[in-house]
Amino acid sequence: MTFAQTPEPPYYAVIFTSQRTDGGNGYAATAERMVELAQRQPGFLGAESVRAGGFGITVSYRAGEADITAWKRHAEHRIAQETDKSTWYADYAVRVCKIERDYGTAFRRPQPHPENQNLENP
Amino acid sequence: MTFAQTPEPPYYAVIFTSQRTDGGNGYAATAERMVELAQRQPGFLGAESVRAGGFGITVSYRAGEADITAWKRHAEHRIAQETDKSTWYADYAVRVCKIERDYGTAFRRPQPHPENQNLENP
Repeated sequence: MTFAQTPEPPYYAVIFTSQRTDGGNGYAATAERMVELAQRQPGFLGAESVRAGGFGITVSYRAGEADITAWKRHAEHRIAQETDKSTWYADYAVRVCKIERDYGTAFRRPQPHPENQNLENP
Repeated sequence: MTFAQTPEPPYYAVIFTSQRTDGGNGYAATAERMVELAQRQPGFLGAESVRAGGFGITVSYRAGEADITAWKRHAEHRIAQETDKSTWYADYAVRVCKIERDYGTAFRRPQPHPENQNLENP
C-alpha cells in the first residue's frame, strides 16, 4: 500500500474500520472489484488501506460529500454492502469526515511555503 | 486492536498514515509512551491503529479541534515529533478532520432509532 496523493484541503474521507470474519467467503474477489469501481467514480481522490490480524482500516478520499453519497448508492456497491454485513465482517464502523488541513512528507504536491511561491514564474 | 467507542458526531480525528524505516531506533518504547500520554489528554475519545509491511494507519479521535492542537503542542510529544521525522518514518501524512456522521455494528452506544428513544424513561 502507498500514500494517497490528495489535493489541498478541504476534501472528504470515509474511514472504514473493520474486523473480518474467519474464512474467505468470496471477499478478496469482491473487494478487488469494489476498488476498481470506486476508482472510476467521479470525485475519487485515492485510498489508503491496511489490515493485520483481521483488523483493518481503509480510508478513501473524495472531493465532495456528494461523491460519497453517490458511491454509497451505486448499484453494484449496494450488493456488496448487503453481503459484507452478514458474512465478511464480524463488526465494522464507517465514519464520514471533512479533511480540514493536512501536512507531512508524503505529499508530492507543492507545499505552501514562501520559497516555493515563485517557482512557476522565476 | 479494537474499535474506538466514540460518541455521537460531531467530533474530530487525526488520520496518521506512515511508512516506517527499517530498524527499531527506539520506536516501540516511544510509541507506547505517546499512547499513554495521549490517553490522558483532555478530549481524548479513543484510537484505532493497524500496521502491516511497514505501512500503518492510526486514527485518533478527539472531542474538539482545540484538543488536537493542545496535543500537538504537548512538550514531550514535541520531542517525539522531532525525532520521528528523521529516524522512524520514511514518509508520513497527517490529516485533521471533522467527523460529520458515522454508523456500523461496532458502536456499542445506543443507536438513534425510534425504538430506543424512551429506554431511559420507559
